Amino acid sequence: MRRGGPEVNSPGAPVPLPVVVPDRGDPAGAIAAAAARCSNAGRWGADDVLGTLNFLTPDKRVEGAALVRRGVTFSLAQSFDMNGPQKGWRRRTNPVHTMLDTGVDAERANQGFPHGFGGADDVVFMPLQASTQWDGLGHIFDHGMAYNGRRAGEVVTSEGDLVTGIQTVGGLIAGRGVLLDVGRSVGTDGELPDGFAIITAHLEQTIHAQGASAAVGRGDLLVIRTGRLARARREGWGDYAGGASPGLSFTTADWLFEREIAAIATDTWGFEVRPNEFDAAFQPLHQVAIPNMGLFLGEMWDLEELSADCAVDGQWDFFLTAAPIPVTGAVGAPVNPVAVK
Amino acid sequence: MRRGGPEVNSPGAPVPLPVVVPDRGDPAGAIAAAAARCSNAGRWGADDVLGTLNFLTPDKRVEGAALVRRGVTFSLAQSFDMNGPQKGWRRRTNPVHTMLDTGVDAERANQGFPHGFGGADDVVFMPLQASTQWDGLGHIFDHGMAYNGRRAGEVVTSEGDLVTGIQTVGGLIAGRGVLLDVGRSVGTDGELPDGFAIITAHLEQTIHAQGASAAVGRGDLLVIRTGRLARARREGWGDYAGGASPGLSFTTADWLFEREIAAIATDTWGFEVRPNEFDAAFQPLHQVAIPNMGLFLGEMWDLEELSADCAVDGQWDFFLTAAPIPVTGAVGAPVNPVAVK
Amino acid sequence: MRRGGPEVNSPGAPVPLPVVVPDRGDPAGAIAAAAARCSNAGRWGADDVLGTLNFLTPDKRVEGAALVRRGVTFSLAQSFDMNGPQKGWRRRTNPVHTMLDTGVDAERANQGFPHGFGGADDVVFMPLQASTQWDGLGHIFDHGMAYNGRRAGEVVTSEGDLVTGIQTVGGLIAGRGVLLDVGRSVGTDGELPDGFAIITAHLEQTIHAQGASAAVGRGDLLVIRTGRLARARREGWGDYAGGASPGLSFTTADWLFEREIAAIATDTWGFEVRPNEFDAAFQPLHQVAIPNMGLFLGEMWDLEELSADCAVDGQWDFFLTAAPIPVTGAVGAPVNPVAVK
Amino acid sequence: MRRGGPEVNSPGAPVPLPVVVPDRGDPAGAIAAAAARCSNAGRWGADDVLGTLNFLTPDKRVEGAALVRRGVTFSLAQSFDMNGPQKGWRRRTNPVHTMLDTGVDAERANQGFPHGFGGADDVVFMPLQASTQWDGLGHIFDHGMAYNGRRAGEVVTSEGDLVTGIQTVGGLIAGRGVLLDVGRSVGTDGELPDGFAIITAHLEQTIHAQGASAAVGRGDLLVIRTGRLARARREGWGDYAGGASPGLSFTTADWLFEREIAAIATDTWGFEVRPNEFDAAFQPLHQVAIPNMGLFLGEMWDLEELSADCAVDGQWDFFLTAAPIPVTGAVGAPVNPVAVK
Repeated sequence: MRRGGPEVNSPGAPVPLPVVVPDRGDPAGAIAAAAARCSNAGRWGADDVLGTLNFLTPDKRVEGAALVRRGVTFSLAQSFDMNGPQKGWRRRTNPVHTMLDTGVDAERANQGFPHGFGGADDVVFMPLQASTQWDGLGHIFDHGMAYNGRRAGEVVTSEGDLVTGIQTVGGLIAGRGVLLDVGRSVGTDGELPDGFAIITAHLEQTIHAQGASAAVGRGDLLVIRTGRLARARREGWGDYAGGASPGLSFTTADWLFEREIAAIATDTWGFEVRPNEFDAAFQPLHQVAIPNMGLFLGEMWDLEELSADCAVDGQWDFFLTAAPIPVTGAVGAPVNPVAVK
Repeated sequence: MRRGGPEVNSPGAPVPLPVVVPDRGDPAGAIAAAAARCSNAGRWGADDVLGTLNFLTPDKRVEGAALVRRGVTFSLAQSFDMNGPQKGWRRRTNPVHTMLDTGVDAERANQGFPHGFGGADDVVFMPLQASTQWDGLGHIFDHGMAYNGRRAGEVVTSEGDLVTGIQTVGGLIAGRGVLLDVGRSVGTDGELPDGFAIITAHLEQTIHAQGASAAVGRGDLLVIRTGRLARARREGWGDYAGGASPGLSFTTADWLFEREIAAIATDTWGFEVRPNEFDAAFQPLHQVAIPNMGLFLGEMWDLEELSADCAVDGQWDFFLTAAPIPVTGAVGAPVNPVAVK
Repeated sequence: MRRGGPEVNSPGAPVPLPVVVPDRGDPAGAIAAAAARCSNAGRWGADDVLGTLNFLTPDKRVEGAALVRRGVTFSLAQSFDMNGPQKGWRRRTNPVHTMLDTGVDAERANQGFPHGFGGADDVVFMPLQASTQWDGLGHIFDHGMAYNGRRAGEVVTSEGDLVTGIQTVGGLIAGRGVLLDVGRSVGTDGELPDGFAIITAHLEQTIHAQGASAAVGRGDLLVIRTGRLARARREGWGDYAGGASPGLSFTTADWLFEREIAAIATDTWGFEVRPNEFDAAFQPLHQVAIPNMGLFLGEMWDLEELSADCAVDGQWDFFLTAAPIPVTGAVGAPVNPVAVK
Repeated sequence: MRRGGPEVNSPGAPVPLPVVVPDRGDPAGAIAAAAARCSNAGRWGADDVLGTLNFLTPDKRVEGAALVRRGVTFSLAQSFDMNGPQKGWRRRTNPVHTMLDTGVDAERANQGFPHGFGGADDVVFMPLQASTQWDGLGHIFDHGMAYNGRRAGEVVTSEGDLVTGIQTVGGLIAGRGVLLDVGRSVGTDGELPDGFAIITAHLEQTIHAQGASAAVGRGDLLVIRTGRLARARREGWGDYAGGASPGLSFTTADWLFEREIAAIATDTWGFEVRPNEFDAAFQPLHQVAIPNMGLFLGEMWDLEELSADCAVDGQWDFFLTAAPIPVTGAVGAPVNPVAVK
């Protein structure tokens, strides 16, 4: 890391800010340094499988529940269907939903049931990170190591994640959610451009702009809106899944660590800025956040409706429940997050 | 229907009760009569797709959130894996989870990523009703008709449920949950025997036994524990998926209708008693509840941990969020329901 | 139908020929007329499920086997993987192949087997027409009717093709194959341009050019090369799956019928020319060929290696075995066709 | 290995024979010794991916084609559907076939196509070894090594078999097939009992009994019938997939090696006798045959119809084509083998 280096790679960034940036040519060094500063390995014992979810204590849930005033809900899930963004990269397809029985068959009395009974039934084939999802702690490794100092090859085999499978999260992810609409505070027409790196100052600026209900602290479930999904819906998916996008700067690792948030989610495919801030690197912030920090990352969330509501009533925090489908051994899992205000 | 007929088919029932039972030989007639009495068709307009979820108003969510006192959560989901109960009936398998990338590959540096980055990724193939799930309103038909007077063949085609697909539920299912542990109140060692039909009197008896926090009314999310899952876990799945089980009596249709609950879920495969109370019928209560009443049914929920907690603190209601994965057009969908107390 | 009308829609066609063409504005009329002329309904009895495969008599297999002179084989299958042409149209994805166990796990001794044993295992999810395949007789319907005068709704339900499922073909498709390399005979650099309609005269011209071994008659398995696959491989898939392509003209229906071939296969996605020869129609030749003629169609075959060999030795017929994977009730099925010369 | 040891584990074996048997307590030693004796590593060069298929030379195909006399075919495939033997072991399910479009929808004019066009389409999800299949050379490893001295972790990763994927076989497996109906020659009522180990003497006895057309030599495709499938069909699948079965004795490894057959297939789930002839071992003959000998194994073939025909006409050899579906990187693959006589 060095000060005063080249600007963050944020073409068209409406609010360029000086920032401590990593050496573009040395992702390995920058990652190692950040990993050392931001590691939670051993913090909650050698057997820990929850990482930053340890910050989500019962009192945070009581605090979150107290935010329910109007009783309105917002689903933060995108759709799960063939109209999604996946294009086959790493064998990720969109969800394929097929029917085992249909109403057409029932209407035609093809089904053989008695007394006018008819039924429909269905199956789905989908990559677990095809749409709105949580990354589990077994999703990313750093030099062959998984979260909490475990060897990757002992944690995630062909049988799945034997240690930190997403089912270990159970129903824990319920608490105080906070939406930081960086797209609205910092961007143009509510959207950040592709390649825009959200740095700590942008986060702080947004918190300041949004007011007291946007305070972010220990145990919070932080939700970041960039506006990228709105653009994808308007202009088509294009390269959304794996393509250029605004997102968190690599340099936010320390802020994420120090704030002791329980989890973070964004409205983008990949959470961090793409292309990233190194000359040749792949998802470097993931490499710090998941295997070292033990941070739970949510991706491809739909924050449009919620952000519109928050902008109207000025209340940016809410009760958030986001329990992933507990596929045993999964390293990521679909979720239908629900914000209640 | 006739009064004073043969007893409900409840072998070994600890609390046999006289009950208005249907004519065992005439399921079609009994279903038609109950459907006529308990229909919500047209009640919320011709375009309605929400059925009894219309009862779940914002004030019920405020009421539910106020029940969060300790900030503890309970996941009500069973596991999603090959150890589940499915045996192939109607092509329903257990969920098959396979890996696209693993930690073993990452550790061996097989993946081709730079700077020590490694990743794991996965897919799932599963019937949407393989494990803990909501039945959508397009799951069951009555004489070729779906909920709200629509023709089944116009609603659920090979492309899925074009009208009442589970995604229409979004994040709505969040509100006051109430657990009636009928197994504990009426059964032996906390369990009802297979074939035991839970009648209205059993529900009322349980409400009475559990006290004020167990009151059931308009807009509530009712959760019924029979103890069947505990038995399956102790003795093996056997014929759990489709086999004999305690469950709701056909005769509870009117009670469910009149209470105006928003949804109901049980810890059994099929919600209603099996074998049912007719000589030759298939899931007759479903035929009344879904296409006529528009009632949302949850099945294969895991209520063990929650019921143990409620028995200790005597608080049987809680904030329940149960947002299904919104697979577009699905007639059922997996869910990880979370109770917060 | 009318004579002397507008030319067949064959932009850049190297050999434009006068042809009896259908009225571009009346696909329904043209299809009905061709269907009436080319129907095999009832020809082999009311219970027939084999259609034109009835022409493939044992003597044709003896004749085919006699063509094996050098003992060389040619697989006519394209690959089955994520690099295929599917783009999600009608929920058709490319095949997704995932591992249940790997050599990496075995090498790491992760598998728990004794005495140094290790294993790998895998699964596939794929549309049955994702790559090289046979269309079954239940794949296409004409006004709600399937092959042999059966109602479509009685033949192919949500449980699959209950009558003409591909498994009924068993091992029958083995006999004399004949390759007509129309791309080579009629095209430029071995390829026909997109939208080029192969008419009867082109087929006859190719037979004449290729010589005696290219004669086509009763019971033969006819294989047509357009060169479209070679172009797709050179230029990328683009819109190959469902896009513009050379292919059989609608006007060849009578020739296909009169020749009494047992089956036909091409190196294109859709067998017939695309866009087709009507103003607004979808796969009109399919509608004649499958439900009326009972003709088996093979699509997406790879004829490159075979055609190169035939061009060298001048022998255009061979022993062809093309037994589909007998997925019970399938309306199409993957196949690895093998030509032996 | 030692002579004169305990009898082969063949309860109820109709023809017990003295045999050189391995030390029941030392599978590792016996496997290592047999592997050393029967290794083809390096035999066809360091780059070889075909193993014993190298024996299948063009002249064998000419010889095979000459066996076609009557022009009759026999499909040797079992069905691919939910009625198969899989019960979930190692996540192997039966094939799940679902429809994307149906005739019921077409008949109801639900599909939106013009001019009376209708279609049906389908998908399948299946383990590649769910039904009739070939084991690829990447299916089994010996102490972390794959065929031809390669490290297992370099050959079969989460991306599949990068070296010996089943697609490398292409259309090669076509040649002279020979059926040895050991069940008929040695068993009772055409069936060998479970646990019956077929030793070399049984093979020779069968060859002798069947006569000249049953000679087995270099480059042949050997097919062994035990009768186990007939029993499974009569009595139900039971534990067929992974359970007790007749099969090849471990002691046949040398015979298989010395005969230089191109491939071998059986009508059983696992090719070799189960339980095997060691006190604690798992598929020990596989460990010799695949990674050391490079032998292609076919499993779960249906030989009933073919064997009945051969018994009638006394011709036990035929032209066999058995081209697997070339799923890229597969370690096993479904096949519809066709015998032509």
